[in-house]
Formats: sequence, C-alpha cells, structure tokens
Amino acid sequence: MKRIPTAILGATGLVGRQFARLLDGHPWFELRCATATARSAGHPYEGAPGLTVAGTSAAEIVNSGARLVFSALPTAAAGAVEEELRRAGRLVFSNAGAHRMDADVPLLIPEVNPEHLELARAQLATHPGFIVTNPNCVVAGLALVLKPLLPLGLEAVTVTSFQAVSGGGRRGVAAWEILGNVVPYIAGEEEKVERETRKILGKLEADRVAACPLQVHPSCSRVPVPDGHLQSVTVEFSRPATAGDVVAALAGFTAEPQRLELPTAPRRPIALLDEPDRPQPRLDAGAGGPGRAAGMAVSVGRLRPLGRRVGFFLLVHNTVRGAAGASVLNAELAVKRGLLSGGADD
Amino acid sequence: MKRIPTAILGATGLVGRQFARLLDGHPWFELRCATATARSAGHPYEGAPGLTVAGTSAAEIVNSGARLVFSALPTAAAGAVEEELRRAGRLVFSNAGAHRMDADVPLLIPEVNPEHLELARAQLATHPGFIVTNPNCVVAGLALVLKPLLPLGLEAVTVTSFQAVSGGGRRGVAAWEILGNVVPYIAGEEEKVERETRKILGKLEADRVAACPLQVHPSCSRVPVPDGHLQSVTVEFSRPATAGDVVAALAGFTAEPQRLELPTAPRRPIALLDEPDRPQPRLDAGAGGPGRAAGMAVSVGRLRPLGRRVGFFLLVHNTVRGAAGASVLNAELAVKRGLLSGGADD
Amino acid sequence: MKRIPTAILGATGLVGRQFARLLDGHPWFELRCATATARSAGHPYEGAPGLTVAGTSAAEIVNSGARLVFSALPTAAAGAVEEELRRAGRLVFSNAGAHRMDADVPLLIPEVNPEHLELARAQLATHPGFIVTNPNCVVAGLALVLKPLLPLGLEAVTVTSFQAVSGGGRRGVAAWEILGNVVPYIAGEEEKVERETRKILGKLEADRVAACPLQVHPSCSRVPVPDGHLQSVTVEFSRPATAGDVVAALAGFTAEPQRLELPTAPRRPIALLDEPDRPQPRLDAGAGGPGRAAGMAVSVGRLRPLGRRVGFFLLVHNTVRGAAGASVLNAELAVKRGLLSGGADD
Amino acid sequence: MKRIPTAILGATGLVGRQFARLLDGHPWFELRCATATARSAGHPYEGAPGLTVAGTSAAEIVNSGARLVFSALPTAAAGAVEEELRRAGRLVFSNAGAHRMDADVPLLIPEVNPEHLELARAQLATHPGFIVTNPNCVVAGLALVLKPLLPLGLEAVTVTSFQAVSGGGRRGVAAWEILGNVVPYIAGEEEKVERETRKILGKLEADRVAACPLQVHPSCSRVPVPDGHLQSVTVEFSRPATAGDVVAALAGFTAEPQRLELPTAPRRPIALLDEPDRPQPRLDAGAGGPGRAAGMAVSVGRLRPLGRRVGFFLLVHNTVRGAAGASVLNAELAVKRGLLSGGADD
Repeated sequence: MKRIPTAILGATGLVGRQFARLLDGHPWFELRCATATARSAGHPYEGAPGLTVAGTSAAEIVNSGARLVFSALPTAAAGAVEEELRRAGRLVFSNAGAHRMDADVPLLIPEVNPEHLELARAQLATHPGFIVTNPNCVVAGLALVLKPLLPLGLEAVTVTSFQAVSGGGRRGVAAWEILGNVVPYIAGEEEKVERETRKILGKLEADRVAACPLQVHPSCSRVPVPDGHLQSVTVEFSRPATAGDVVAALAGFTAEPQRLELPTAPRRPIALLDEPDRPQPRLDAGAGGPGRAAGMAVSVGRLRPLGRRVGFFLLVHNTVRGAAGASVLNAELAVKRGLLSGGADD
Repeated sequence: MKRIPTAILGATGLVGRQFARLLDGHPWFELRCATATARSAGHPYEGAPGLTVAGTSAAEIVNSGARLVFSALPTAAAGAVEEELRRAGRLVFSNAGAHRMDADVPLLIPEVNPEHLELARAQLATHPGFIVTNPNCVVAGLALVLKPLLPLGLEAVTVTSFQAVSGGGRRGVAAWEILGNVVPYIAGEEEKVERETRKILGKLEADRVAACPLQVHPSCSRVPVPDGHLQSVTVEFSRPATAGDVVAALAGFTAEPQRLELPTAPRRPIALLDEPDRPQPRLDAGAGGPGRAAGMAVSVGRLRPLGRRVGFFLLVHNTVRGAAGASVLNAELAVKRGLLSGGADD
Repeated sequence: MKRIPTAILGATGLVGRQFARLLDGHPWFELRCATATARSAGHPYEGAPGLTVAGTSAAEIVNSGARLVFSALPTAAAGAVEEELRRAGRLVFSNAGAHRMDADVPLLIPEVNPEHLELARAQLATHPGFIVTNPNCVVAGLALVLKPLLPLGLEAVTVTSFQAVSGGGRRGVAAWEILGNVVPYIAGEEEKVERETRKILGKLEADRVAACPLQVHPSCSRVPVPDGHLQSVTVEFSRPATAGDVVAALAGFTAEPQRLELPTAPRRPIALLDEPDRPQPRLDAGAGGPGRAAGMAVSVGRLRPLGRRVGFFLLVHNTVRGAAGASVLNAELAVKRGLLSGGADD
Repeated sequence: MKRIPTAILGATGLVGRQFARLLDGHPWFELRCATATARSAGHPYEGAPGLTVAGTSAAEIVNSGARLVFSALPTAAAGAVEEELRRAGRLVFSNAGAHRMDADVPLLIPEVNPEHLELARAQLATHPGFIVTNPNCVVAGLALVLKPLLPLGLEAVTVTSFQAVSGGGRRGVAAWEILGNVVPYIAGEEEKVERETRKILGKLEADRVAACPLQVHPSCSRVPVPDGHLQSVTVEFSRPATAGDVVAALAGFTAEPQRLELPTAPRRPIALLDEPDRPQPRLDAGAGGPGRAAGMAVSVGRLRPLGRRVGFFLLVHNTVRGAAGASVLNAELAVKRGLLSGGADD
C-alpha cells in the first residue's frame, strides 16, 4: 500500500510536534511537509529528520505534493489558509477553531459521531477538497464520556476543568502567573465547551447538524500541570439513573474506531479507574498506551452518586486525544470510509 | 481592660502558628501557653518570643491559668483533651473536627449563624466550660457565601474545590505526589463539606440544630498551590433568580461581626471582584486586609448565569478564614455576647 | 519640603510596578508620570490611583514636569530614550542594562561604591542631566556581600545562581519550560555577572572606573520560584581566611545608606542566618522589612569552610534589591549628596 | 541459562519500584521476593504481578530462595539486615548508605572503579556472602564524569546540586516546604558527596581503598523538580587544561560495562549536549534509552572555560543511575566477573 503524502501546518508548536510524533512510522500517512512562521522557515524540522521547515501557505503545501493536511495552526491564522487548501483540493483535518462551527464542516470524534463525517463527503460536491475538525481539548474528553450516557436520559452536565499549561501552547501561559496558583478563566473556553459539545452530540439532518439540547454548564481554569486536562463532572438525567447505571454504560464502551482497529485507536476509549484518588494528570495522561495509542484513552474515576445526580472526574491528554491524536484518528476514519483515496483501502 | 489569658493547643503546626500571629497584639486575648507534642515541649516557641512550648494536656492548660483555649489539634488528638478542658471549666474554640457534629456544640461562622452560639451558653448549664467549633476550611468560605443566597430560594449547590497544600498541614501533602499534578480526592472531605454546610445553615431549635435541607454536591481536589482554597460553585434556586440577583445579595452583605466591629472581622466579609480572571489564590488569599483582617474576606468572581443556574468562583484563605481566623472571630463574638468574662465588656 | 516630581519608564511591568510601590508615600519623590508601550497608553495606571499611562518617550517625560526618572525599560528600548532624557536635563536612575558599562555612567550600589556617584556629577559638566545605573539582579546581591570580604584578600568567587521567574518579567519565562524543571542557562547573564561585579568593586580613577581584578566564575540557571534569586557562592582569598573571619566581616556590616538613614535602606544590609537550611526564597525574599525596606536586605546562610575556601548561600529579592529598590536607593543617595536639587536638602 | 533468583528489600518505595521495573524481563535476574515494612506485608506487590509483599527480614529472603538481594532500604534499617544476609550467604547489592564506607565493602560504579569489586571477592574469604554498594545519587553522576578527567590532572571540584524531590523518597519532601521554593540544605548530603567521591576515585591497595586526594567542595540543595539531579560543576587541574581537553576526555568515554555489553549499560555513559540550555531535568533525565538503559546515561552540557578552570552542568537520574540502576549494573558486572554463580556465565 502506498502511504498518503501528508503535511502539518504549524508543525513546530506543541501540537504540531505531537502530529509529527504520531506520523512517525504511521502505516497509512507519510509526512512530506512541515510548515511554520517565516521565522522558522528554512531551518531543519526537529520533528522529522531530513525535513526542512516550510513557510505556512497553501502554495507550499500544494508544491510539496501533500494531499492530506493536518492543521495545528492558531485559530486566527487557520481560517483563510484552510479554506484555500480546501479550494486547492486538499483534505484538511484541523485542530484549529476556525471552521469548527461551520454548518458544512464536521466536528468529529470517531467514537462519538462518525456519521457526521458524511458532511465531508457533502463538501466534495461543491469543493475539490474538504475540511474536517476535531473539538477543543476539553470537549474531546467530555463528549466521549457523555456519549454512552445519552441513552440513560442525559439532560445536563456541569463541568469544572483543571487545564494544563500545554493547552496554551509553548509560550501561551507565563510561569509568573501560574506558579503556585490557579487562574479561574480561559478566554472563550467555556463558550467552546458548550457549543462544541452540543454540536458533536447533535443529530445529522440532511446537510447540517441539529445541536443536542443538552444543558452544558462549564467553568474553566488553568492549573500548574504540564499535560492533561482533569475535569470534575456532574451529570443529570431525565429519568432515574444510578451511579451503577453510569458505570455499566461506560465500562464496556467501544465504538467504530475499535471495530475498525484504526491504527491510533485505543483498545478501550474509556478507562474506568477504581482507585479512590484517580485519575491524576501525572499518572494517567498517557492512558491508552503503550505504543501509538498512548494518550488516546480518557480516564474516568471517583464515580459516585451526588443526590439524584452522578459525579466523576475525567482526564484527557490535551495535546493527544485533545488535539493531534484527535485529528489523526479522524483522518484514519476517513480512510476507512473511503474519503481519502490512495490510502488504506486502495 | 484586662486581656483574657489564652492558650493554643497544637501551636507549632501551620494553623497553630496562624493562631499565634492573630493573637500577637490582640486587644482582648493574651497568649499564655502554647502546646505541642512531647517532641517539641521544652523548646522555645517560635510563634511568640519568651514562651516555651508545653506538652499538650489539660493539666498544662489549667496550670498556665489560661481560660480561653484555641485548638489547632489534629482531629484524632482533639476529642478527649477538648472534652477534658470543658470539664475543667475552660472555654474552648476549636478548629478540630472532633466535636463539630456534636448536638450540643455550635459549628459557628459569626456572619452566618451567630445565634447558634447560644448552644455554648446551654453547655454552661451542665458543664463548667464549653466547646465552640469552626467548620472545615472549604465550608468556611462556602457557607459564608451561601448565607445571603438563602432568601433567594437556594436549593442546591455543586462545588468543585481546588485545595491548597497548607490544608494538609506542614507535612501532610508530599511534594512527590502533587508537583505538576492534581489529586482529585481528599479523604473524608466531601462528607464534611456536605454535613457541615447543612448544620451551619440550619435552624437552631431549642437545644439542637435542624440541618438545612440544602442539596450539597461537593467534589474535592488538591492542587499545587501553597495557600488559598479556590472553589468553582454552581447554585440553583427554587424560584427564578438571576446572576444580577446573586450579585445584589452578595454585594452589600455585612453581618453581626461587622456591626460589632470585632477586631478580626473584615470590613466586608465578601469581596466581589469584577476582573474576568479572579479570584486567584496568589493574588487574593489575603483579602480583607491589610492588618489583622487580612485573609478574613472571601473573594467571589466570575459570577455569571449558567442556564437557569448561577456560577461563580470563590476563594477562602484556608488557614486564616478557614481555620485560625475563624476560631478567633468566634471567640470575639463570644466576648461581645457575654460568654467570656474578663474580656472586652468587663 | 517639596517632593521631587518623578517618572517611571516602563511602569506596567513587574519592575515598573515595584517602582510604583516604593514611590507610594515616598518622603522625597512624587510620582507624576508612568509610561509604557503604545498599547497600554491612555489606560488608568494600576500602580497609582489617578494616574493615566503615558507612552514611552522623552517628550512625555518632559511634558509631565518630572525631573527624576526611574527606568524599568527593557535594555533594547532603554538606550536611546535614556540618552535623550539626559540631554533634556533629566536625572535618570536606570535598571536597564543599556548604559551600565558606559565609562561615564556609574554602576552603583550605595553600600558598596557610593564614591562612584561622582561620575554622575562629572556628567553634569557636559550634559544638562545624568544617567546612573544599578546592576543586574544577581550582582545586586553578590557584590554587596563581596564588598566586606575585599579586605580579607578576596581573590576569586564561584557562584551558581537559582534565579526566580520574575527576573524574566511578567511573560519572559514560559510555564511550559520551567514547571518541574531547571533551565541551566540565561542568555547573557553570566557575562553580566562577571563584568558588572568587577566594575562595581573597581576603583574610581579620575573619570573612569578601573575594574577590580577579582576572578568571577558564574553559572546561571532558572528555577520554578516566583521571587528571590538564591546563589551558591564559594570565595577564595589570597591569604588565609577562615569561615569565622567571613562571618565577622559580614556580621557588623553597615555603610553609607545606613549612616545617612536613607528612606529605603535596611537597618542591616546583610542578614546573617544561623538556621541550617536558610536562606530560602519563600521565607527570606522579604528580608529588611517590615515596611519600606522589605526586600532590601540580602540574606546569607550556611556559611562554612570548604577546604581553604569558604562557602555560603545568599538570597536577594530580584525585583526589589535587585531592581527597583536598587535604583530608588541610588536616587536617595544622590539626594543626600546634593545631586538632586529640590529634594531632601532643599 | 537459568536466571538468578533475586529479592528486593524495601520494594514498595520509589527506589524499590525502580528495581522492580529494571528486573521486569531482565535476562539474568528473576524477581522472587519483594519485602517492605510490616504494614505492607501480605498485600499484592504492585511492582510485579503475582508477587505478595513479604516482611523485611533475612529469614524471609532465605526462605524465598533468593541468592541475589537488591537493597532499597533506608540507611537506618539497612545496616543490620544486610549484614545478616551476608552471613546467610546472600550476595547483597545495596543502595543504602549503611555499609558504603566499610573498609571491606566496595563502593562501586562499573564505569569508574570496576577493580574495586575485588573487595567483594575478598569478603568471600571470611563470609559466605558479600555486600556491594553503590554511591549516593549525586556522586553516581559526579564521579562518573570526573573519572575521565583524572588523567588531565584533576585537583579540585566545586559542585552545587539541584536535587529532585524523588531523592527524598515518596513522602520525604513536603509540598509545603518546596513548592515555589529552593531549600539550600540536605542533611548529611555534602559529607557523603565528599567522602564517597574520594573513595570511588581512590586506589585499591591490597584489601582496602586509599581515598583519592581530590578536593571536593559540595553545596547541596533541593528544588521543586520530580526527577533528575542537576549539578553545576567547576573543575580545576594541576596543569593547564582547556575546555577542549575536557570535551575530548568526555566525548569518547566508554568503559568496562560498554565493552562487556552489560544489559543495563548505556551505549555511552556520558551524553555530551551542544544546545546552550541543556541538560534539563525534564528533557534529559531519561538519557541512555530508549529501553532498559533509559536514565543510565549522565548528561553534560554548557561546558566552557571559567578563567583557568572549566565549568559545566551535569544531570543524573537520581533513582535510576543514582540508585536502582546503579545497583543492577553492579550486579551485572559481578556476574561477568564470576562472582554470581548460576548467572550468565554458568
């Protein structure tokens, strides 16, 4: 099988480097091009021996021969170049926020809403390429855990996040502000958690997604932790549901990526922990591994009744399952669904 | 005015040292005796020049002539010695958990339930002394902020705590487990938050307190922060209440300690912050000061609607308003209510 | 007495805010103008109620009527504007590195080389104003402690620094790189430590300073500490000198700022600590206080023989004695030496 | 080949768990017994599936059939039981400090002083077993780097350590004292660094080691870093030696463990880094890997002249090369030297 020529936009940042790590030795994708700002262009790319950093532009991608493009760009930079790449016939899988809420763009978690990928196919009716997005790092963990709870009558979720500094990028969080401190605010984050969760859990109707009417009440904060977003979650149901029902729903959960044995899919997407003091970022951020799927499982622990509600903590590796790994898994699903020619099914 | 001779039990720990700091120059109380474990006894007491550490026993306290006793003992050590001191006619104000839920012992926050102090007077009918307790450090902040919300029809509160390491005492939290990490569990803490909040907000009926039927859903965690317990709070009401209603209820809140101008009372017990990223432990733990009341105000910020509910973050200095300062304020209220002879009103 | 109208250049950064704190209520200096980059200009200045941030330019300063100017600018921005202000007849006390090694500019620590201030007087022969600088934050502590050791035959000093993140400014050190880590390199720092120490300890000859022939061997690193530069120091002497000799030299050390009772001078510039595990940044960074001189004393501990050498640790508050406090003390010395008319001696 | 039955004393601590990790799949050694304090005895051993924790006593070890014993005991507990095991014919490789300075016990680093292992053979003349020790975690890195410098005329070394919290064990360092802080003291550490470095670099003479007359000037501190002891080192020579000479001596250094291809030996024991800001604990503690030798290489960077001396930083993984890995490598050398029958050479 011939591997699909691939590019990374914004390849030198923390998420860009996670893309490079996941593409190293990937069975279906071959890294051909890594872009960054003009300042880095021309330097050797530390994420892949032999590669030189290119400037970020649609022309550079096209010249490189890459068909598949992973985008780790900041949202402000991503909008135009991703759109231009779609027009240039590239298949863009983006971690950026620019197009997540576009009506024609799927916001995808393969275990949660694989059917939304049909929106990408629909784009191909009017464009030579398409854009597929993965959600914000908090949502990547939260929506995955909420999905198996929908059949129990899930109605509302209250979530307080403890977000790691890597979520702000290499220089996004200043040591001065976070050392020995907690900052109970991340600009725009709570809005994203609400709207993206509702889109992902929504129903695909013809050519758009009807948002799920779930109530989402997020409170986001930054903590002095390198990697791993912990979340304190309370869920409410429209009909009686016990902590045992929630355990039962989560325990056996697997979905399409597991059935298809996608290369970056963890064997079990949700790791249920029994220890009284888990999950912890330092101990559990790498769940899903060893190997390629390390960091791709979401850990859940401290599951217990809170009155008629159920509470738990979850942990998601924010730059793996919450960013680069999310997009790679999306692209793997697209291959299996026949959306990337030249790939696994050719 | 003659100052009341005072002792600190467990004077060498973090809370014990806060007691000593608050008693230094106190207008009504005079530190006469500081106790600790046998290992420290006989050494000079670092919290007060000229004082030697005594062993922790009722006899030492009685011999010292102290009438007023502040207890910073660990809960396991506190039960028996505090009881013995009550029998010996001492007036005990305790930060320990041992007697908090005793039916005849008030669990007191002067701004919240000053009338519960009558339980102490009732103890004097059958004992020569009494015991008064202050709540757990999380509750000390939470119940204070919930009190002005009761008239709005407060029905349920969901709270996720970010607790500082000083809450575990000088050696209670190991660096190895908390550096760059969050531990989503503190043994016994969530039970305390629920039952103590409900007792404090409860109604005094004859000789006992009927717990408030408020639903309390706590999730407690430890974070790598030295001082200051941050809390992410969501409140629900039985009738429509807006974020504006909550702001209005909190903004002007003052209570008996402010009217009485107790020496350790902050001018405003609740500090409402407008900045989008506050309160933060490092910036706001000392609210209420400068001076004696530093650390005695609870900061509230990010107040906003969450659907039909209201969310906010609050911050309480866990070893001041949440421990030593709480007990000192309780004792000041007792003086003004005539429960400590030889004090301010003599 | 009329207070001297004063400006702060770069007033919104960490050092700029320390200047504002030290000028609040200063008996001789009155803050009239606070400048920052264009982005902040026009906003209220958080460091002083009622003041609006001005843009950083010589014209703004001149218009404000300020005669005395404290500069907290980054070195790259400082060179030209400080020079322009000297030409405009202002008296500039700068924490920036731009002019520290200029032959006609004193690099001053009032306790160490007050006589070098005569270089400022010399500037007045050819300029309407002058520039006085204080050293790098490491040197501010190191040179102060080395000064009393010169008479013992001090010949060489080996120093390893543990530098706090505030030394890099509010956003200079990224959380991602320093959390749970040490970075054994700070660009340009070791060169500064060597050359500035030698200039400060050097001899004033006519119109220039002959550098002290002391060997200085610095190794600089960044640690995850908010404030306070710790330094591990080994000193060598040309003739036999014991740890006791060093203790004796440091213990009683006071100098001109103490004799003149300058407002920001600590009673003792060097605090000798006996405890086996001190100084520590968290416990000792504020040495010299309480009050205006907090953070102005340098702490020294663990003084002990290392073969024929002597070792110790020292701690200097990097943004107080190592930056803003250093310049304020320099200006106070200049007032007393008659270099600032309209000040204390008018 | 039959694997040697092996035990770990103190198997549940941080070092004990590193022993278990290194023994998992070890080609020559087979874990049969893991001991800990009475409190843990009887529980499943988390470091090896199927094993139950035994109490720490010589009898338990003998009953288990283990011949080879790795000791991760605290020094105070180690002295008697290790001695008893030697009398019981066991071959003890200890990380504890109890017997390191015994005249008949080798203090061994296979790359540095493999010939000292003959002291173990000498013990067999009078005992049925022997004790071999590895040095303190700082010395494990320092002596390894100093060894190749001896031929240049190494005369003195000044070292300031930045020690990680794991060096104090799981609960040895309190979060309260180290968060956002540096503690410039570790009890007894500097004495160990001096005397152990001099023994390791000393000459084996008949039945004892003559300490190397190197001057060692250590200053030890604790920093808020999880793993990896950084050291700022200055070396002095009796004859002219340049930084280039030092680079040349370190660059090609390999020794007996590399020639023998011991299973836990890194391909290169010293990793020389060119980047200006390395080594860093978080990036470089695992040097030597991937695989079994991860954490077994010592990283050296920032090598530069300091006057006539040479300065550099080194980093050693304190619980691997500085503890468990050190002892495992010692035992592997002993196997190759024929001191452990039933092992590789049988």
